[in-house]
Amino acid sequence: MGKSEIEKVTLSEKFSLINDHWNPRVAGELNGQQVKLAKFLGPFEWHHHANEDEFFMVMKGQIEIHLRDKVVTLRPGEFLIVPRGVEHRPVANEEAEVLMFEPASTINTGNLENSDRTRTRLSKI
Amino acid sequence: MGKSEIEKVTLSEKFSLINDHWNPRVAGELNGQQVKLAKFLGPFEWHHHANEDEFFMVMKGQIEIHLRDKVVTLRPGEFLIVPRGVEHRPVANEEAEVLMFEPASTINTGNLENSDRTRTRLSKI
Repeated sequence: MGKSEIEKVTLSEKFSLINDHWNPRVAGELNGQQVKLAKFLGPFEWHHHANEDEFFMVMKGQIEIHLRDKVVTLRPGEFLIVPRGVEHRPVANEEAEVLMFEPASTINTGNLENSDRTRTRLSKI
Repeated sequence: MGKSEIEKVTLSEKFSLINDHWNPRVAGELNGQQVKLAKFLGPFEWHHHANEDEFFMVMKGQIEIHLRDKVVTLRPGEFLIVPRGVEHRPVANEEAEVLMFEPASTINTGNLENSDRTRTRLSKI
């Protein structure tokens, strides 16, 4: 990568380009990992990732990460790492902007590979 | 990891515990990567990382990432990925709070392994 390609990412600009929900875009790649951005609204499916830990940080709004034994509420400036194998269900009662950090191989619906919400080819943003 | 250990991280709380500069703490681990938090103040050394790409996101304040051909200014809600091998120098004209993502193997001063600022054993926070 040439230096001229090294450009910062302004998250608010990127989120303003996203007009759907639960459809992650790739905003950066490093060390085999991707920085993904998505808007969340409503409840997502229960799922887990067999081989990937997943990082969620809220940039705007508020989300809940439901685990089988508790609910973690995330607000801007808060993050949660869901370890591999742990069932979870993101829920956003109002629209929220979320940054995720995970291996490039991660599928959004984890073990539910054929959900209506499964996204396997993510656009860059 | 048991579910009871899955706890969110509130960045402002963690940064309030940091009273020095250029001394990254580990706030989370996932997929062989670490989430590191540090306060920056003043100019850091020019360095590069031979094998690691580095992610900088400003949570509070403002920093500059000096590259050999330009300066990128980062404010809250902005991030920059510095690819491996690219010389860079972070500079904070006022104290700033910065979140980094990088492989657990990354040394803060990169190729300058014996700088006064080199930190090889990072505390968890």
